[in-house]
Amino acid sequence: MVSEQVYWLWYPGDFEIHQGMLQNFTREERGFDWPAYWYMDDCHRNVSFKKTYELTAPTTFKVHAKGQGYVLVNEHKAPFETEITLQPGTTTIEVFVGHPSGLPCVYIDSDVIKTTADWQASNFLETHPVGFSARYTQLLQDPNQVYYQHQQYQPAVVEVVNGGVLYDFKRAINGVVQVRLTDIAAVTLCYGESKTEALDVEMCYYKQEAVTETTPVRKRAFRYLFVPNVMPEQVAITADHEYFAYPKRAQFNSDDQLMNRIWQVSETTFKLCSNLFFTDGIKRDRWIWSGDAYQCYLINQYLMFDEDINRRTLLALRGQNDLKQHLNTIVDYSLLWLIGVENHYIMSADRDFVASIYGKMESMMGLFETQIDQNGFVYGREKDWIFIDWSEFDHQGPLGAEQILLWKAYEAMIICGEAIGVDVSAYRARQATLKTAIMHYFWSDKQHAFIDSYESGREHVTRHVNIFAILFDFVDVKTQRQLAKTVLLNDAITQITTPYFKFFEADALCKVGFLDQVYGIIRDYWGGMLEHDAVTFWEEYNPADQGAEHYAMYGDPYGKSLCHAWGASPIYLLGRYFMGLRPTKPGYATFELAPQLDYFKQLDCHLPVKDGEVQLKVANGQLTVSANRDGGTIILNGQATQMKQNEVYQFDLKANA
Amino acid sequence: MVSEQVYWLWYPGDFEIHQGMLQNFTREERGFDWPAYWYMDDCHRNVSFKKTYELTAPTTFKVHAKGQGYVLVNEHKAPFETEITLQPGTTTIEVFVGHPSGLPCVYIDSDVIKTTADWQASNFLETHPVGFSARYTQLLQDPNQVYYQHQQYQPAVVEVVNGGVLYDFKRAINGVVQVRLTDIAAVTLCYGESKTEALDVEMCYYKQEAVTETTPVRKRAFRYLFVPNVMPEQVAITADHEYFAYPKRAQFNSDDQLMNRIWQVSETTFKLCSNLFFTDGIKRDRWIWSGDAYQCYLINQYLMFDEDINRRTLLALRGQNDLKQHLNTIVDYSLLWLIGVENHYIMSADRDFVASIYGKMESMMGLFETQIDQNGFVYGREKDWIFIDWSEFDHQGPLGAEQILLWKAYEAMIICGEAIGVDVSAYRARQATLKTAIMHYFWSDKQHAFIDSYESGREHVTRHVNIFAILFDFVDVKTQRQLAKTVLLNDAITQITTPYFKFFEADALCKVGFLDQVYGIIRDYWGGMLEHDAVTFWEEYNPADQGAEHYAMYGDPYGKSLCHAWGASPIYLLGRYFMGLRPTKPGYATFELAPQLDYFKQLDCHLPVKDGEVQLKVANGQLTVSANRDGGTIILNGQATQMKQNEVYQFDLKANA
Repeated sequence: MVSEQVYWLWYPGDFEIHQGMLQNFTREERGFDWPAYWYMDDCHRNVSFKKTYELTAPTTFKVHAKGQGYVLVNEHKAPFETEITLQPGTTTIEVFVGHPSGLPCVYIDSDVIKTTADWQASNFLETHPVGFSARYTQLLQDPNQVYYQHQQYQPAVVEVVNGGVLYDFKRAINGVVQVRLTDIAAVTLCYGESKTEALDVEMCYYKQEAVTETTPVRKRAFRYLFVPNVMPEQVAITADHEYFAYPKRAQFNSDDQLMNRIWQVSETTFKLCSNLFFTDGIKRDRWIWSGDAYQCYLINQYLMFDEDINRRTLLALRGQNDLKQHLNTIVDYSLLWLIGVENHYIMSADRDFVASIYGKMESMMGLFETQIDQNGFVYGREKDWIFIDWSEFDHQGPLGAEQILLWKAYEAMIICGEAIGVDVSAYRARQATLKTAIMHYFWSDKQHAFIDSYESGREHVTRHVNIFAILFDFVDVKTQRQLAKTVLLNDAITQITTPYFKFFEADALCKVGFLDQVYGIIRDYWGGMLEHDAVTFWEEYNPADQGAEHYAMYGDPYGKSLCHAWGASPIYLLGRYFMGLRPTKPGYATFELAPQLDYFKQLDCHLPVKDGEVQLKVANGQLTVSANRDGGTIILNGQATQMKQNEVYQFDLKANA
Repeated sequence: MVSEQVYWLWYPGDFEIHQGMLQNFTREERGFDWPAYWYMDDCHRNVSFKKTYELTAPTTFKVHAKGQGYVLVNEHKAPFETEITLQPGTTTIEVFVGHPSGLPCVYIDSDVIKTTADWQASNFLETHPVGFSARYTQLLQDPNQVYYQHQQYQPAVVEVVNGGVLYDFKRAINGVVQVRLTDIAAVTLCYGESKTEALDVEMCYYKQEAVTETTPVRKRAFRYLFVPNVMPEQVAITADHEYFAYPKRAQFNSDDQLMNRIWQVSETTFKLCSNLFFTDGIKRDRWIWSGDAYQCYLINQYLMFDEDINRRTLLALRGQNDLKQHLNTIVDYSLLWLIGVENHYIMSADRDFVASIYGKMESMMGLFETQIDQNGFVYGREKDWIFIDWSEFDHQGPLGAEQILLWKAYEAMIICGEAIGVDVSAYRARQATLKTAIMHYFWSDKQHAFIDSYESGREHVTRHVNIFAILFDFVDVKTQRQLAKTVLLNDAITQITTPYFKFFEADALCKVGFLDQVYGIIRDYWGGMLEHDAVTFWEEYNPADQGAEHYAMYGDPYGKSLCHAWGASPIYLLGRYFMGLRPTKPGYATFELAPQLDYFKQLDCHLPVKDGEVQLKVANGQLTVSANRDGGTIILNGQATQMKQNEVYQFDLKANA
């Protein structure tokens, strides 16, 4: 039974690739545009769409398209936007659309002929099921446009300072400023995520001069606005905030008010960075980074559970069939993309998506085959960026962390391949060979840990490879716990300095049971930002920084993004480990709730699962758990309780303590 | 010594690929657009440009670009359109330009910093010398636009007919119609290359209704316009003809008035089809076809000698690095593209161009490698079109004509590769093996000719394979002449029916010396079209057709193009064989003039050579020959005379007769 829902149709992936390119062109800094510094794919320019109908009665239809072309019906050509009459019988409708500058797409909503999801699209090389989106179902829409929700905001605080006026919206805005001016023709707008930045007329990231009431003002992200050389009565400011209204699928309330606030600000931060795609930050870079996106898939699963944004981001990152370079030029980001597809499949059980993208996973594996040595290790080539993290690695020869990711990427090929019934034996064989080689070359018996790299003979231990070994179950649970002690909880090993990798470290610590430590880290690190009046979580936070030092990064006084997606990681850590929720079969056909709730006397937490939600409540020493779908198992103190849809399960926490 | 000429710069090939795509989107038919039916490449969206200067004094510069981005100077970023000051020393300037919908390009014309032809461009994968064009040297230009010459035309004849008015411009127009209306709000425009078509209000190819004085009217090709339901005094028509003003490099005047007229109409036809690219026709298809273009390279060499249009057409046809399908989906068109590059090199000696395109020649050879059998024969795959010609071939197994083209394409790889100093031994080996296999499988001793194909055992002989064997010197001169007699001049062998292949046949007949036959064909076939009041030469002409039958093709009453580039082939045949001009070394470093002038009592012919021209005059039984460059050799009656620049050589034709 095919849905009758009518969509705008495009060649699969093209909408995401085209809009992703536009997204990667939105970065702005001090008066210039900063396109992302990698090869950029665009959508196809010339495509066709096709469906065959068995008509039992005469019918008419009309084709609407973005682009130029014609309709071919049983060998007869006809223009768009004109009524075409069909007679009963087998009728194949083909629509040819070229778009010299944008996304070619088609829309038909007639009595019988409709652009439903079961059409096929061709780029004149291959034919596949069409691409479409639930966001584009109306004739008056144009998939070349992105439609945001709008909310008008006035400044919350207006302050006369430095001969001008400082406006504090008391929240992050991502939108367009409108000015109303009295007795003054034009003003200068200085933006800031921080007050310090907005007041720095010379160096603030965004500034627009000679702004009148009718000047087009660019969409920007900020909390503060400073207008120099004016009096408050001369200027009235409104901000038109643009956002995607993702439905609320999770909530967290506890007696730990700081943790509640951390959840709320995490949620705010994450939703600001979640528009058509997951971007790293709203002020900067506004680019789609595969490493950042990978962490977003994890957070999304515990907050919005929006499958569409995952799919859009994965498709935009990967681009067209021919893979020309690693995602964002970074080898490990390509691997995280593969692992991200697996995570999305486990979260969603979306076999259709896996089937549509598996060819692009395989061609990515094809790229890796060109840079694998005799041991099966991936190595960097000229122009490849072996990133992992900003840290001091022993970069002589292949890096251990990269090999664990490759091993896990083979796992992704196996799990996704099996989901759609393709032969994965080659990946199984490579994975087994790679494991043996990693253990031979990267495991140090002396250090009871994995080393960075082996060619130098220095046996240098950093956290990264060991974190991945824990996270991706490269070693057994006992070894994982031992690695956490010998490496992660060992102050002699260089600390992780980036929030990007601190996410992975906290994930690993929680995974092997060190929840106390992580609970403390969340309160200290994220709580510390709140003490600095954060309304969103930052790209990085160093408690030792003073004053304006907090806003500097990459050698730029305001280089730091103060609303950065990965700042929202407490949501994932709380949901995944403290609430203990995880799918044990794809799409939560079965799932586990293994809560660790010693930290809460009072709690009311709702978390999404596929097609439903779970609730955990703590009050008066009692834990109450329920789910509005079948498949759950509560695990408490080693005891498993099967859950039924909508039944409420109650446990005495004190008895369990 | 680098030229100081300033250009708009782009990534090499991008201008041609982008404009070629737009060209292939210009086809219109009966109210709808008809995009070409193949995979279409576009230009890169994101590129960078770079040059390093050794500055001896401070200087300033300003960057102009189409697209968005920034300038990077010694690690410092700056916006476009602002003055940047440089200090003495080594200075690397990088310009990053993204263009989400068009061609990214850059222009600088400051004191020292200028976008000269010696910059490098990168697509973030590869770095190459920039692309540029002598047509885009001014700041106020935009390489996203094509700039035509304009000429206004009024109708030459106005006729009241069928209740409306028929306008005859007495020439082909390719442009936009403007109407001035009196006592009428709007009119319908019906276009025709023929009177019959214009008067056919229902079926004419182009028609636009409700045209007012301000309605945008689309650019169309026509000679006649019919405006139904008006009186002559109600409508005034002007046509704004758009064209490329290629300089006049050739002329032909003789005592054969018909031949003079054929040359003139050929020239008109060819120049109408020569705009930014060689297209097949101006009414239809307006697409860039590799087979048609190949014949245009030959005609161009004897008429306009414009190297730029060759290069632009070759680049547009080939597209980006990754070759996704055969050119225009046709296997032999890919081979003719390779052979066309060789022809361009021999004509121009442009090693820079060969160096820039050789990688794309090699990747095209890579595509052939995927469809070559154990004998070295190319075979068609699913979705490949083995065209050769519209004719009855024995299509069982590999086609002989295709193998001769492949053999010649190896020659192109060898000649072009040697020109730029790359190792071509692999192509030599493949060429030799292929020759042996062709002789073994396709040569019929019984028929003294090459056969279509061998798998069926039918030993079917058509002209095509034998024509290519003559044209490309696959067999020795004696065998060529024998093939002409046993096949080409043999009425028992099915005649060629398309003008496309008639061109190759006439070329082959001339090559082996049957000029009388070809001279007669030119007068009959092209002269026949002139008798039908042709102002341009047609896609096809069948003397047996009656009335409106002349305008029908492809099952469409007006499907025939009446201004078709290959219709201009008499120019090539006259120049190449009757004047006997050909380069014997690349770029006419040496060239040959072997005139066959028995057909003319009076003649004044100028033909272009690289960096010059040759003149041939016949009067009073005397032939006078000169060239304004060195390198020529006159061959007359087996006697060779070396020519010096600007010296005049005189021969007694009667004595030679």
